[in-house]
Amino acid sequence: MAKQKKGEKAAAGGLREQLRVPAGPVDLTTYDTRATPGFDGSKDDGKVALEGLGAEVSDWQERLFAEGRKGGERSVLLVLQGMDTSGKGGVIRHGAGLMDPQGLKITSFKAPTPAEKRRGFLWRIKQALPDEGMIGIFDRSHYEDVLIARVRNLVTPNVWNRRYDQINDFETELAAHGTTILKCYLHISPEEQRTRLEARLDDPTKYWKYNPGDVDERQLWPDYMDAYHAAIERCNTPEAPWYVIPSDRKWYRNWAVTTLLLETLRELNPEWPVPDFDVEKEKKRLAAT
Amino acid sequence: MAKQKKGEKAAAGGLREQLRVPAGPVDLTTYDTRATPGFDGSKDDGKVALEGLGAEVSDWQERLFAEGRKGGERSVLLVLQGMDTSGKGGVIRHGAGLMDPQGLKITSFKAPTPAEKRRGFLWRIKQALPDEGMIGIFDRSHYEDVLIARVRNLVTPNVWNRRYDQINDFETELAAHGTTILKCYLHISPEEQRTRLEARLDDPTKYWKYNPGDVDERQLWPDYMDAYHAAIERCNTPEAPWYVIPSDRKWYRNWAVTTLLLETLRELNPEWPVPDFDVEKEKKRLAAT
Repeated sequence: MAKQKKGEKAAAGGLREQLRVPAGPVDLTTYDTRATPGFDGSKDDGKVALEGLGAEVSDWQERLFAEGRKGGERSVLLVLQGMDTSGKGGVIRHGAGLMDPQGLKITSFKAPTPAEKRRGFLWRIKQALPDEGMIGIFDRSHYEDVLIARVRNLVTPNVWNRRYDQINDFETELAAHGTTILKCYLHISPEEQRTRLEARLDDPTKYWKYNPGDVDERQLWPDYMDAYHAAIERCNTPEAPWYVIPSDRKWYRNWAVTTLLLETLRELNPEWPVPDFDVEKEKKRLAAT
Repeated sequence: MAKQKKGEKAAAGGLREQLRVPAGPVDLTTYDTRATPGFDGSKDDGKVALEGLGAEVSDWQERLFAEGRKGGERSVLLVLQGMDTSGKGGVIRHGAGLMDPQGLKITSFKAPTPAEKRRGFLWRIKQALPDEGMIGIFDRSHYEDVLIARVRNLVTPNVWNRRYDQINDFETELAAHGTTILKCYLHISPEEQRTRLEARLDDPTKYWKYNPGDVDERQLWPDYMDAYHAAIERCNTPEAPWYVIPSDRKWYRNWAVTTLLLETLRELNPEWPVPDFDVEKEKKRLAAT
């Protein structure tokens, strides 16, 4: 168990307990996007605390990976959702970046191609699932199919309405086969988004991240919030719970998601595999070479 | 350009020039597995120097990634080969681990399945190639098809003999389509391998990395060296050169491969993409929201 860093507050049940969305109706306007639940230090403290998670989270990751190589069937899937600029990429860079890239399977979902649409919205998602021992990370996910698809009327209400149950069935089955699912909504305010989009327009090294369509989507903010409320409420199951991560402070967001991942790995508690060979006999064979 | 760290020796042509295998016959016994070309510091200096590469290599990686998102077609492919325990995984963990995992596509090749064999040995390799803007890393590769396949007579001599030309054709085409290929042979001595295998048998957290088959392969060391000599000699093209990395010292190996990657990215010199929209107009649109 890693030592607690300055700023980290231990709480019964851990950070998952604090950030987990309770069952029932969801209203994101009641969540403070600048809050830092479970942490009462400064930005610098937060960065130090994040670095401090590296060794332990990497160790657990290697144990899970080892287990997967020796017949274990467990894996972890981290789903990242949020409005543009909420920091899905930042979490991967700074949080997942602490781990061994060999044990990560990262997929960034863009608009589906015609060939993908034809196969049903979950088909491409299933292609991207983590194998045993791996930590899968989705930058956007099947939730886009009840978010932009709903807001932009890309399919009829009848179609998107059925998808919530389809998602729950899919996630329940996934969990039953050994995948621990962690769904994070990175929660920013519209004001913070404006600031971040402005920053992209002010910095030539960030132009490539900007898309004029981002402003169009931004103008539909209330519609997106409605769609998020429905998605989080209707797909908030014990097998695949939602967490709301206050994300106006990037350092908190990175620390919080990494901590959720760490708590999840600790609970899975993968053991180093027992040898499937005779250790003493192998030592002798090796010595003879 | 990053400042040089203690131990790093600048050389005309860079480290690539020093580690690149010259055209002609190859004899790996003439390479010192404990050498540290281009570096004359201690192990600790080496670790500091490696960390010191992180910021610059990440910056270039992001530029390449950005270029790829805006129509650029270039990518990098790092091929890692070497005997068991030579440290292919260690290079990925410690070297590639310095970069953003979103820009990496890592593939570890095991024995091919019947379905893969049926499609020809290059089929599964092509599935795993990096897309534009990405850095692909192969932990083992199509070279296994002229290494273990040759040593273990998995195919007839006639079949493996033709593969060298097939590999050269494949790599030449790949390079012509914008992929810079970097092939690294991680060179360890048989004595160092014994030490590392012993370490795996002495440490319960490493048992999972040990396979009794490793000792069988080890007993064929001279045959593998012959196969490596042929592979490196016959597939050492200007488009896809081989580098021999002395790898008995893990810290040197990690620093050297990362430095080769850095020099490659510097030479590609990807520029931040120019905006494909009107920046001032977008600022106004954004301000109005």
